[in-house]
Amino acid sequence: MNVLIVYWHPEPASFNAAMLRTAQKTLLAQGHDVQTSDLGAQSFNPVSGRHNFTLAANAEYFKQQHEEQHAVEQHCFSDDVAAELEKLAWCDLLLFQFPLCWFAMPAMVKGWIDRIFVYQQTYCQEARYECGRFTDKQALLAVTTGDPKCMYEPDGAHGDMLGVLKPIHRGVLAMTGFQVLPPFIAYEPAELSEQERIVLLDQYQSRLENITRDTPLSIPPFKN
Amino acid sequence: MNVLIVYWHPEPASFNAAMLRTAQKTLLAQGHDVQTSDLGAQSFNPVSGRHNFTLAANAEYFKQQHEEQHAVEQHCFSDDVAAELEKLAWCDLLLFQFPLCWFAMPAMVKGWIDRIFVYQQTYCQEARYECGRFTDKQALLAVTTGDPKCMYEPDGAHGDMLGVLKPIHRGVLAMTGFQVLPPFIAYEPAELSEQERIVLLDQYQSRLENITRDTPLSIPPFKN
Repeated sequence: MNVLIVYWHPEPASFNAAMLRTAQKTLLAQGHDVQTSDLGAQSFNPVSGRHNFTLAANAEYFKQQHEEQHAVEQHCFSDDVAAELEKLAWCDLLLFQFPLCWFAMPAMVKGWIDRIFVYQQTYCQEARYECGRFTDKQALLAVTTGDPKCMYEPDGAHGDMLGVLKPIHRGVLAMTGFQVLPPFIAYEPAELSEQERIVLLDQYQSRLENITRDTPLSIPPFKN
Repeated sequence: MNVLIVYWHPEPASFNAAMLRTAQKTLLAQGHDVQTSDLGAQSFNPVSGRHNFTLAANAEYFKQQHEEQHAVEQHCFSDDVAAELEKLAWCDLLLFQFPLCWFAMPAMVKGWIDRIFVYQQTYCQEARYECGRFTDKQALLAVTTGDPKCMYEPDGAHGDMLGVLKPIHRGVLAMTGFQVLPPFIAYEPAELSEQERIVLLDQYQSRLENITRDTPLSIPPFKN
């Protein structure tokens, strides 16, 4: 498989960074090809705008979808967007590695979606959910939390984790056709001992060693 | 009431910008005080990191919550974060105006949350949900969509809108104690006629004229 890892964390010695290295090493050892978009290292700009494009379809009024359609036809994406679009097209598995921030992607990762999931190439009116562009691709969220697992149970304070992740799983990934694999959640690594963290990384490694045998989540209603 | 409007849209002539102007005008006419964080105009940086602070608690290992706690005690937030924290403390109503992007806040608005909802000042282990810091404040999402209302019904392709907004309503706003008012959703303004857009802005104006009589949503389970 071709695997694209989209990663962000502000601390290079973080548990997220350790998960990234575990994924890179494990997937390569399994014979997969791996590319990483390390958004912090790339100084990726997460804010969408006219700078996504080198030419404008309409210089008077900026509508992102119109500009994206124009840029797909005219090949006029900015270099940073074009590079990520190429990696996205290349991958069979899209793996996100980030700390869950306020029940969602941190701004940097959200900005990668906002700028790279372009109209026409990633989705259009007719190409969504089971008719999506990416039905031959899989996606996996690997995230860390600051709170314990019990708070993300159905009767926990935050509600169940799959509910928390639903806008990402359904609205970003299933919407564009991805087969969404069950997420790998590392609960509150900051509270774990060194030994417990190693066990958790080992579990992540085992999960990735068997990733090709994973069963995707069923995300209803999958209709257009 | 003191109202803080947090706004982002890349096009100054957008319907989002018209909603912003409607809100500013209407709320002022009702005798409220209004401040606006126009994140694009401010060139707000949505990415969190060491630049949030002028001094470091730990220069070796960056953990945002620890640095935030230190900055609350030592008053060493960067100027841009400090200015937003002051506006957040000042407001009785926090009003977000943005286009719903991929079932979530656009990166710019998400980055405002990531950087400004700081540990200790906005929440801590003991101060969450009904024990949150902001139980005397209200919050309102005013958003636009690209898809029609029928796609955001419970049996629509995207699932019901309150489910889509739940991570924001519950995980960001209720989590920090806010009373969450029912959102104002402007469905696919890009597909409306000029006349229909004016009607929609009138509806928004009426809603805001009666905002002090609104009943907050009930967001279970509201327990710590």
